[in-house]
Amino acid sequence: MEFYVDLNSDIGEGYGSYKLGMDDEIIKYVSSINLACGWHAGDPMIMDKTVKLAIENGVKVGAHPGYPDLLGFGRRAMTITREEAKNYMLYQTGALMAFAKANGTKLQHMKLHGGFYNKACVDPELAAGIIDGIEVLDKDIILMVLSGSYIAKEAKKRGLRVSEEVFADRGYNPDGTLVNRSQQGAFVKDIKDALPRVIRMIKEGKVTAVDGTDIDIKADSICVHGDNPQAMEFVQQIRVGLIEAGIEIKPVDEFIK
Amino acid sequence: MEFYVDLNSDIGEGYGSYKLGMDDEIIKYVSSINLACGWHAGDPMIMDKTVKLAIENGVKVGAHPGYPDLLGFGRRAMTITREEAKNYMLYQTGALMAFAKANGTKLQHMKLHGGFYNKACVDPELAAGIIDGIEVLDKDIILMVLSGSYIAKEAKKRGLRVSEEVFADRGYNPDGTLVNRSQQGAFVKDIKDALPRVIRMIKEGKVTAVDGTDIDIKADSICVHGDNPQAMEFVQQIRVGLIEAGIEIKPVDEFIK
Amino acid sequence: MEFYVDLNSDIGEGYGSYKLGMDDEIIKYVSSINLACGWHAGDPMIMDKTVKLAIENGVKVGAHPGYPDLLGFGRRAMTITREEAKNYMLYQTGALMAFAKANGTKLQHMKLHGGFYNKACVDPELAAGIIDGIEVLDKDIILMVLSGSYIAKEAKKRGLRVSEEVFADRGYNPDGTLVNRSQQGAFVKDIKDALPRVIRMIKEGKVTAVDGTDIDIKADSICVHGDNPQAMEFVQQIRVGLIEAGIEIKPVDEFIK
Amino acid sequence: MEFYVDLNSDIGEGYGSYKLGMDDEIIKYVSSINLACGWHAGDPMIMDKTVKLAIENGVKVGAHPGYPDLLGFGRRAMTITREEAKNYMLYQTGALMAFAKANGTKLQHMKLHGGFYNKACVDPELAAGIIDGIEVLDKDIILMVLSGSYIAKEAKKRGLRVSEEVFADRGYNPDGTLVNRSQQGAFVKDIKDALPRVIRMIKEGKVTAVDGTDIDIKADSICVHGDNPQAMEFVQQIRVGLIEAGIEIKPVDEFIK
Repeated sequence: MEFYVDLNSDIGEGYGSYKLGMDDEIIKYVSSINLACGWHAGDPMIMDKTVKLAIENGVKVGAHPGYPDLLGFGRRAMTITREEAKNYMLYQTGALMAFAKANGTKLQHMKLHGGFYNKACVDPELAAGIIDGIEVLDKDIILMVLSGSYIAKEAKKRGLRVSEEVFADRGYNPDGTLVNRSQQGAFVKDIKDALPRVIRMIKEGKVTAVDGTDIDIKADSICVHGDNPQAMEFVQQIRVGLIEAGIEIKPVDEFIK
Repeated sequence: MEFYVDLNSDIGEGYGSYKLGMDDEIIKYVSSINLACGWHAGDPMIMDKTVKLAIENGVKVGAHPGYPDLLGFGRRAMTITREEAKNYMLYQTGALMAFAKANGTKLQHMKLHGGFYNKACVDPELAAGIIDGIEVLDKDIILMVLSGSYIAKEAKKRGLRVSEEVFADRGYNPDGTLVNRSQQGAFVKDIKDALPRVIRMIKEGKVTAVDGTDIDIKADSICVHGDNPQAMEFVQQIRVGLIEAGIEIKPVDEFIK
Repeated sequence: MEFYVDLNSDIGEGYGSYKLGMDDEIIKYVSSINLACGWHAGDPMIMDKTVKLAIENGVKVGAHPGYPDLLGFGRRAMTITREEAKNYMLYQTGALMAFAKANGTKLQHMKLHGGFYNKACVDPELAAGIIDGIEVLDKDIILMVLSGSYIAKEAKKRGLRVSEEVFADRGYNPDGTLVNRSQQGAFVKDIKDALPRVIRMIKEGKVTAVDGTDIDIKADSICVHGDNPQAMEFVQQIRVGLIEAGIEIKPVDEFIK
Repeated sequence: MEFYVDLNSDIGEGYGSYKLGMDDEIIKYVSSINLACGWHAGDPMIMDKTVKLAIENGVKVGAHPGYPDLLGFGRRAMTITREEAKNYMLYQTGALMAFAKANGTKLQHMKLHGGFYNKACVDPELAAGIIDGIEVLDKDIILMVLSGSYIAKEAKKRGLRVSEEVFADRGYNPDGTLVNRSQQGAFVKDIKDALPRVIRMIKEGKVTAVDGTDIDIKADSICVHGDNPQAMEFVQQIRVGLIEAGIEIKPVDEFIK
């Protein structure tokens, strides 16, 4: 049997004179990037440069739209309507499409950022807005969302291509949601624990939840972070470990129907 | 002999709760609109709504990118580099392309706004950045610029489709530039003067400059304004007058090679 | 017995080239204004001009800070921390204090705007942040909040001067909160109903709730709107009616201890 | 004879999640800080925190207002009017005054940032706007500007307290302006050259210009940078060298009349 998975990371998260993350490093280890589109982070110069960086590294590009909240880095909850969700996503994704086109490539996927991601995963109105948007923009664009989430199911129902993503460094509740960051079992920081977990997610479609029970999970893509040297080491070890376990790392575009 | 001209107007210039201009009115009289893209004015909700409005009215849509200066409505001079010019234009134009695509249409043209327009018309660095951008984004997009300007000539040299625009209500210097707003002869406010001037621009390719001399001018498109009821009346009279003079009003896409 | 009340209105809500509201009109009928501070609306030019307008009209000035959300006009719910609430309020209030000082006056009060107002009225964390801020900035500044709200009680407990405001055009629930805008009884649009209601609030400290029961209400200030000609007429009638009922209209600074 | 000088540095230049500069380090070596006010950099959380940091380190606080251009870090030239200059400065300075007051201190000075600084030093309209603003806000606030500049002279004429600042690491033209960064002699990077230069500026009021001639220069304050470890070492050496040369380092407030 053949196993494969995508590795995705958020990059291009600086703004103007501000730098954030180790983009030049992390891009060597992933197969897909989520590129900030100028609202919660990112700007036109960074977007153009990062699309070029992705092409040089043979990595697929996705849009990473966020709430209009640079001050809060798009992490804060904010109340927007279904139509605003659609249009805010379209605006940012369109802006990035221009840089993709200008550099001779196309967007592979779209993954929401921070508070926008969290809310759209569970809120039917926001989820509907996002699905509406991809439907009218380009049905080839893969929607990258939390594995097993409401939006994942709904988007599939409505005929979109969906990549269900998992987190190597996070604990799961019995219902498949992530353990809240403030609670016991929220993080899986030791690579010795994390690596067998993700391998099992990919090979068996199972993960042990925080209460010890086994739950089903689909792992099309693993989200990794490149914020600091330790994070980078974690990513390298995940990558090497997956390959050693016979799992091929490749962009979701190559296997999502 | 057959005569024709495009009528273009800036619209979609509100922001959030703010309204500006009489979009629903002016759109009935023009053949092309320049739609603000969220930096100096406009936002995703307005962009989506205005693209729909244009389609309903059979009017062609162009991007209208401006400087990142909502506070100054993009009118203030600002120093940016060639690469910034390219990327700022691409970002905004791409954002609008998403709304065009989502609504089943395409962008006809791109016209810069305010301080960005003024500078790019005369500054070789900025002009180059803008031409670079259209070249890599989509060579079908027509560049709408000041008739006879540096950028008009340069863009044609580099193979772009160019629409040279004129102003019905402005005076011209002997070198073909507009008379500065603070000087005598800057405005041609009376429709009785303005109408024969534009008809002559279209039919003879000539206009009388502020010093009384006749100069050559190419009029692919006439820029008109819909800010207030008087402006609206002016536009109506221009439109009716042109048609009565046997000049067909049609979008630049239909006649710019 | 002597009766008095303050009339307050939000003004200075334009931005850059955008106008909003009939500031020059409404200012003739109120005793206090809440001046937008540049985040959800307002800008330095408007703030300076509006402070001057208030002084000319003998009206007291208050700060009107909002969420950092110009696109949503500060109306959308947004999650911020206690310390952010304090600092966001201080930043905007300080900015306005500069214009007050530059024009030879002082701030009378501070009233939050939109989503910030709504949340701080009921949320202990946000309320605490706002009270923290006024405590360290200037304890003479009156906190203008929803009559009977959590923050009103808490601010009094902590020794602040508090102006409890009521709405002439809104219905009340039996617990003293406003009837939600989407529900039956949310609005009291007819001046014939609204006027006796506010007079009773002032003279008897009572209002009839949406379920027909009488509830206690303290009316230090009445919030009125100047968005359109009808609103303006309503305000004029409220003002005349109050005076005819023997109620003096004066700024809260003259009677809040 | 007694010698003294102020050392000033720009700090608090992060924004939201973005960090910039080594504030905790540089603050140990200077006597005055210029604190970004949220337009080109800085935000309410950073402003509050940095005022506290300054108080803990016994350092005087000044406002550091910039153009409304976070994307360009306030470095780009921008055209604004005299009244805009006044109001943009007042807004930002007022915002910081709130944090100073909330933390029990006062602003010592105001120094413009980047493009705003450069233009106001030479442009009579902008200079007038800035002087207008301090005049009406608080005449105790010291204006920190380029030594010998137009605004320095004009502000003194109009009765303001002025701190003339010099640069330890920059070359001077014979007319007292800084050598353009793109030209030969723009920088004095070696501490062995820089230290005797600043000592001479302070003790003799002279500096050798790029053409070898000696010119007069007044050095109330020396601007230093804390962007990186090398910059930090330079500052430490300047500080130690000044003290060894018998020059006392103290805030401008202690000696500017």
